[in-house]
Amino acid sequence: MKPTLRSKTQKLLHGVDRESRFSVLVHLVLASTIIINVVSVIFDSVEALADRYYLIFAAIEIICTLIFAVEYGLRVWSAPDDPRFEGRFSRLRYMLTPMALIDLIAILPIFLWFFTSIDLRFIRIIRLLRLLKFTRYSTGLELMLMVFRQQLGVFGAASAALACMLVFSAGAIYIAEHEAQPDKFGNLLDALYWSVITLATVGYGDVVPVTPFGKFLASVISLTGIGIVAVPAGILASAFNAELRRRESEYRHQATRQLLGKRLTERVRHKLRSHQEELGISEEQAQSIIEDIRDVHRNAGDEVLTCPHCNQPLHLELRDTETTPPPQKS
Amino acid sequence: MKPTLRSKTQKLLHGVDRESRFSVLVHLVLASTIIINVVSVIFDSVEALADRYYLIFAAIEIICTLIFAVEYGLRVWSAPDDPRFEGRFSRLRYMLTPMALIDLIAILPIFLWFFTSIDLRFIRIIRLLRLLKFTRYSTGLELMLMVFRQQLGVFGAASAALACMLVFSAGAIYIAEHEAQPDKFGNLLDALYWSVITLATVGYGDVVPVTPFGKFLASVISLTGIGIVAVPAGILASAFNAELRRRESEYRHQATRQLLGKRLTERVRHKLRSHQEELGISEEQAQSIIEDIRDVHRNAGDEVLTCPHCNQPLHLELRDTETTPPPQKS
Amino acid sequence: MKPTLRSKTQKLLHGVDRESRFSVLVHLVLASTIIINVVSVIFDSVEALADRYYLIFAAIEIICTLIFAVEYGLRVWSAPDDPRFEGRFSRLRYMLTPMALIDLIAILPIFLWFFTSIDLRFIRIIRLLRLLKFTRYSTGLELMLMVFRQQLGVFGAASAALACMLVFSAGAIYIAEHEAQPDKFGNLLDALYWSVITLATVGYGDVVPVTPFGKFLASVISLTGIGIVAVPAGILASAFNAELRRRESEYRHQATRQLLGKRLTERVRHKLRSHQEELGISEEQAQSIIEDIRDVHRNAGDEVLTCPHCNQPLHLELRDTETTPPPQKS
Amino acid sequence: MKPTLRSKTQKLLHGVDRESRFSVLVHLVLASTIIINVVSVIFDSVEALADRYYLIFAAIEIICTLIFAVEYGLRVWSAPDDPRFEGRFSRLRYMLTPMALIDLIAILPIFLWFFTSIDLRFIRIIRLLRLLKFTRYSTGLELMLMVFRQQLGVFGAASAALACMLVFSAGAIYIAEHEAQPDKFGNLLDALYWSVITLATVGYGDVVPVTPFGKFLASVISLTGIGIVAVPAGILASAFNAELRRRESEYRHQATRQLLGKRLTERVRHKLRSHQEELGISEEQAQSIIEDIRDVHRNAGDEVLTCPHCNQPLHLELRDTETTPPPQKS
Repeated sequence: MKPTLRSKTQKLLHGVDRESRFSVLVHLVLASTIIINVVSVIFDSVEALADRYYLIFAAIEIICTLIFAVEYGLRVWSAPDDPRFEGRFSRLRYMLTPMALIDLIAILPIFLWFFTSIDLRFIRIIRLLRLLKFTRYSTGLELMLMVFRQQLGVFGAASAALACMLVFSAGAIYIAEHEAQPDKFGNLLDALYWSVITLATVGYGDVVPVTPFGKFLASVISLTGIGIVAVPAGILASAFNAELRRRESEYRHQATRQLLGKRLTERVRHKLRSHQEELGISEEQAQSIIEDIRDVHRNAGDEVLTCPHCNQPLHLELRDTETTPPPQKS
Repeated sequence: MKPTLRSKTQKLLHGVDRESRFSVLVHLVLASTIIINVVSVIFDSVEALADRYYLIFAAIEIICTLIFAVEYGLRVWSAPDDPRFEGRFSRLRYMLTPMALIDLIAILPIFLWFFTSIDLRFIRIIRLLRLLKFTRYSTGLELMLMVFRQQLGVFGAASAALACMLVFSAGAIYIAEHEAQPDKFGNLLDALYWSVITLATVGYGDVVPVTPFGKFLASVISLTGIGIVAVPAGILASAFNAELRRRESEYRHQATRQLLGKRLTERVRHKLRSHQEELGISEEQAQSIIEDIRDVHRNAGDEVLTCPHCNQPLHLELRDTETTPPPQKS
Repeated sequence: MKPTLRSKTQKLLHGVDRESRFSVLVHLVLASTIIINVVSVIFDSVEALADRYYLIFAAIEIICTLIFAVEYGLRVWSAPDDPRFEGRFSRLRYMLTPMALIDLIAILPIFLWFFTSIDLRFIRIIRLLRLLKFTRYSTGLELMLMVFRQQLGVFGAASAALACMLVFSAGAIYIAEHEAQPDKFGNLLDALYWSVITLATVGYGDVVPVTPFGKFLASVISLTGIGIVAVPAGILASAFNAELRRRESEYRHQATRQLLGKRLTERVRHKLRSHQEELGISEEQAQSIIEDIRDVHRNAGDEVLTCPHCNQPLHLELRDTETTPPPQKS
Repeated sequence: MKPTLRSKTQKLLHGVDRESRFSVLVHLVLASTIIINVVSVIFDSVEALADRYYLIFAAIEIICTLIFAVEYGLRVWSAPDDPRFEGRFSRLRYMLTPMALIDLIAILPIFLWFFTSIDLRFIRIIRLLRLLKFTRYSTGLELMLMVFRQQLGVFGAASAALACMLVFSAGAIYIAEHEAQPDKFGNLLDALYWSVITLATVGYGDVVPVTPFGKFLASVISLTGIGIVAVPAGILASAFNAELRRRESEYRHQATRQLLGKRLTERVRHKLRSHQEELGISEEQAQSIIEDIRDVHRNAGDEVLTCPHCNQPLHLELRDTETTPPPQKS
């Protein structure tokens, strides 16, 4: 099938192709547009700046929205060439994906700005949603989300324990401080707010205990806070670690397959390199693993048994359809 | 033995049976009741809301307590069918377990509410204890408790070191600031409170040092605080890690047993899957471990020695009563 | 050599002997005395309590000091029986050890109290030093100190980086805020204090930036603070982990030695148990390691080669002077 | 080539040679000069001290700058002997390296002090840059930088997620609090500052939410802050861990090479020791690894097959050009 302009557009917008300089440039422009737009929205909210650089902010807003609109248009137009939306109503189905809806929300504010006279302050905030478009580019987030998903059980238990602790400390501080400071610990919600701010070790200082028992409670909750921070850190550290070890082990398999009974030719080296990159193994680690395989090989694979009667070698063959090294002779 | 209504009730309330939709539903209702009740208690403590939605809060309280009471009644009634309480006085023995006492405390407040006119504020807090009923559902907590128990020695040492550090910094800040701020650092207890709030990096700001030496001390304690947070995080991370590795290794044994000299049949696959779920091994890890076992197998189990005299293979048998693979022939 | 009363005293005070109930009791009393004394000193500093319970605090002080004095006396008296202080001047040499000096300092305050009329406030703090006597009992601290010592290089680098960061942020905030708040950022020392309190995420709020650039700096330093906490946590976690793995591996060696070619007799089981306790290996881990050794054994040690010509087994012997299993026959 | 005075100077200044006492002394003096100078600059900024000890501060400044100037001069003079700057313009090329520029900046302030009358306050800060000279001595930083570089992808993703979270929470708190506190949440920049200070758990307390929704947001952001701290800690812990494991494995290879079929002679022991130090392996770990290699050896290398026909041993040889142990005989 010959690539049409539409299919080429679809491919270009779908993701970055690091081989093509044009693709990299397009995505660089799109990413910069988002950042420039969000930064401009933030500074536009400062009244002094908004008054002074009114035209600049307006220009940035219009240009960015134009780029977003063109991008959105091209994405909708080229949707039929996306294999995920093949068949009927492909454009409508694309337009209803969360990503496409975010793209649409990102360009709507300007129309409200043109055609209505309602207060724009709230809409300014909506424009910050454009940052969500960035999730399209994040590849490292995948690893983090995977780890989160794998450890969901432990995270859930930790969150439940945290919730219980917060509710109990709220109840306790309410009993301790309600009499002394009825305006600050007036109800359990206030007490809960204080518990969270203390347990998270933020400690604004707008609400502080004054009774001895309240201070004792604050001390206990603060020290618990230290332990609480440790829980997700411990879970994440061990989960990342397990993932890293899994990848290392995966690379070891691939490398063992490639190396078993073979010389380290250029082709083998190339294959190993591609596995290494795919699994995110560092150069030193890869070197170390290959050394390791060779050492094991030396002990098991390269050993040659010789019969003392006839001094002839006992051939050692690995009967495996996938990896058949030539029989070794002494 | 035919299951009676009582034994079925006991089984239903004992724990969630994920296969039965009715069991899941019952436990979902019971869990929601606890959460709704606790949330309602918290909001009921806000005077403005309590006055306005008096009837709603009262209705929630009555319905929830009714559900708790029915649950408690059924649990006591069906206690004789619980194998843990077989024999005489099974109901009484059940009623004296911590769980049953919590359940009882959870339904008591409403009677006080009906029959007495004492101030209810304190009782409101007692109702928060119902959250403790949740520990019944937490399975992930087990892992965390196990890890804590295993590392008790190191946690103990860290806590002792922390206590010493707190007492010494309290003494030092007392000497430094007592003269300058006799109202804020009036005694060692005040100084200890400040030490905890600073070391835990909460830092309310209600008590701050003003003398140069006091500020120096605050700096040292703050920086120590950074290190202190690291200690439990480090212990937990390595403990979780060790547990994860142990489970991986456990799975490896089970898988080796299952796979040794066998084809990967549906039955073997099913057994492996059940081991995997039980030990909480992820799909990728399981795949990686099985690959690993096969690689080792290939090096050790599948190797065929050929005799140089007749060029016929030397059979390799694994003499093991548990796993007898068919003798391999070339 | 017959144990004299003096040598028995020395042995008793030297360390806890968990087999002897008397030894455990003595050390329990000594430990409680320290804790009671320190707690009493802290509460004695609260004026209201000191006035009211004057006699109680005085009694506790006198009794505790008496116990400390008797302990110190017995330790000095029995020092010649301590193998570390054999030879001449053994008592004097013992008295000059840090531990003995701490013990001496712990009993001195009471004499000052009796014989002088100087202000006792400062001396009260000195009494807190008695907590240092506790280091005698801490065995878990050893592991932590070992890990710290092993990772000294990385901790040193992290500390140096932290110091640089603090100095630079102090310089930057001084430039940013000195004009606006000359009273709060009057010199680099003030700026350094603020930097530490911010970077350690304590954030008292007594000194806060007011200029836009100052606020920007505060944001950057705060976010850096998040990363800074992560560094010691990461180092500690990996160091603890390495130590745990080392111990696991150590246990594996010991177990392999014990198990190689032997049946799991009661004597072997007892030896394994003692290794397990010494290295702090949990029951599950020990089980898992032993399973592992057996699996490897099965693959390597139990395999029997049979010659196809004569169907006789090829004997497999492990030529090792330490572990000579009986030759295996089919 | 005979070492000239210039080449010796270059070598001396290039790095510490722990064998030569003179080299250690020189670098100790240079390092102390930096620390003394920075500490003096900090204390000099305290007006009371600056007035009183004017002469001392001036003397320290002049002496330190003199030492810096001499060091800079010698470095420039000996640059042609540095292999990195061989060829033409070696001195100029050296002078343009970042390190040399820092050295130059470190000595410039004094000339401004002598020849100009501009306000010196700002220049005082510049002198703090001398601390950068320290990066020359930091060897432990290398490990940390390597780990950072290896995990750049995950750190990048975490930073992007953090930035998104900050922008969204800024937008949300702006909507919640702008009406109630227009002076504190006047624009998105103020809201962003608050978000950072809260998420980093610094919590100064200069800007706090007052509306119920604002307090709810603050609670959510604070609790998120706990998780955020965990992310870099987890990444760092697992990265350090992977590096440690890699080094252990590297040491294992080296040790296997050295030990295979050899007696543990003094020469082998010396080589192992040097590998151990280079890779930062602790004594206990090294011991454990060597034990491990011997155990494996015993199972694989020392096994002797005996032929059933003649009952004579089948020799086992490891055919390896690098490590040829003597053939083993029974």
